[in-house]
Amino acid sequence: MSNLFKSFLISSTIPSDLKEKLKNSVTVKKIKKGTSLQVKGDRLIYDYYVVKGLLRSYTIDEKGKEHIFMFASEDWLMSDIESQVFDKTAELYIDALEDSEIEMIDRKAFREINAVRYFDGDELNKLFKRVAVLQRRVLLLMSATAMERYEHFIQTYPDIVQRVPQKMIASYLGITPEGLSKIRGQRVKGKN
Amino acid sequence: MSNLFKSFLISSTIPSDLKEKLKNSVTVKKIKKGTSLQVKGDRLIYDYYVVKGLLRSYTIDEKGKEHIFMFASEDWLMSDIESQVFDKTAELYIDALEDSEIEMIDRKAFREINAVRYFDGDELNKLFKRVAVLQRRVLLLMSATAMERYEHFIQTYPDIVQRVPQKMIASYLGITPEGLSKIRGQRVKGKN
Repeated sequence: MSNLFKSFLISSTIPSDLKEKLKNSVTVKKIKKGTSLQVKGDRLIYDYYVVKGLLRSYTIDEKGKEHIFMFASEDWLMSDIESQVFDKTAELYIDALEDSEIEMIDRKAFREINAVRYFDGDELNKLFKRVAVLQRRVLLLMSATAMERYEHFIQTYPDIVQRVPQKMIASYLGITPEGLSKIRGQRVKGKN
Repeated sequence: MSNLFKSFLISSTIPSDLKEKLKNSVTVKKIKKGTSLQVKGDRLIYDYYVVKGLLRSYTIDEKGKEHIFMFASEDWLMSDIESQVFDKTAELYIDALEDSEIEMIDRKAFREINAVRYFDGDELNKLFKRVAVLQRRVLLLMSATAMERYEHFIQTYPDIVQRVPQKMIASYLGITPEGLSKIRGQRVKGKN
């Protein structure tokens, strides 16, 4: 079991009946590359903690085009937080980009636990950091050039850049694969 | 003093010396419409709790164009959370769109308090809700039409729509004022 859920089980602020419930709500799974974990409209929603591997979440627009919302590699928690907070069916598609080992936790159980447990400084920092990263993402989408968005991406997620196809990076950045290819060409030229 | 800071002062998990510090870190201010509170690059950063009135935060791109990140009316907390989390100088401009009454809290003091105090369920929900709203914002910016973005905005912030100029709504949505005007025309037609 991951550090995340282990930390819940040894927490002194979580009542023992809830710990028991938590134990029964976490499922450890090994999944193959390409496995679909969540589809828009799903009613049963999980949070996914990545022990090993890589997940992505995305939306599909009316024209059938995919837009990648986020990637999650080792030690990340992937959630469809909008549907959780507003208690709606799933908004996002989630699937595995590599063979992965994940822990799934039922969102209802997670909620009950979050309502009573103490969030320590580390966890709060992670939550604040998530807000900060999304602030940056919105600002970049609104006001930065494609080149600036790419530079920011490779600086922030050097690990991810190596692991996903270029067309998915383009989809994350909100540009076409051709546009990304052009940018990469310009960068190589600029460095020589 | 607002409910927000009052709740800190009666909290049992905040040590009394920190409460004293907090009291000294909160400044109540009445400001006129148009007052600038923060400029990109500022080193001294505050969080702004809106008691009355309306603030906006925005960025300015290389061409001098403004992009509105958020509006904050009564009972909202406006923060430049990216610069806080990553300990950088201010990223955003913040100013008042109406005569306002605000409470300013020094971010260093706020951090120290957040590190030791207990976040109750309500506050955590607000923080999760902020993440959810930003998730929606990113998805809308990436994959929705201007019309869909406008519909979502007026449903989510009916109060704000009445209080800010159209050109600022356009800036928030990432479209031109002309584009917004066209959309509003289409909506009126569609309803008749």
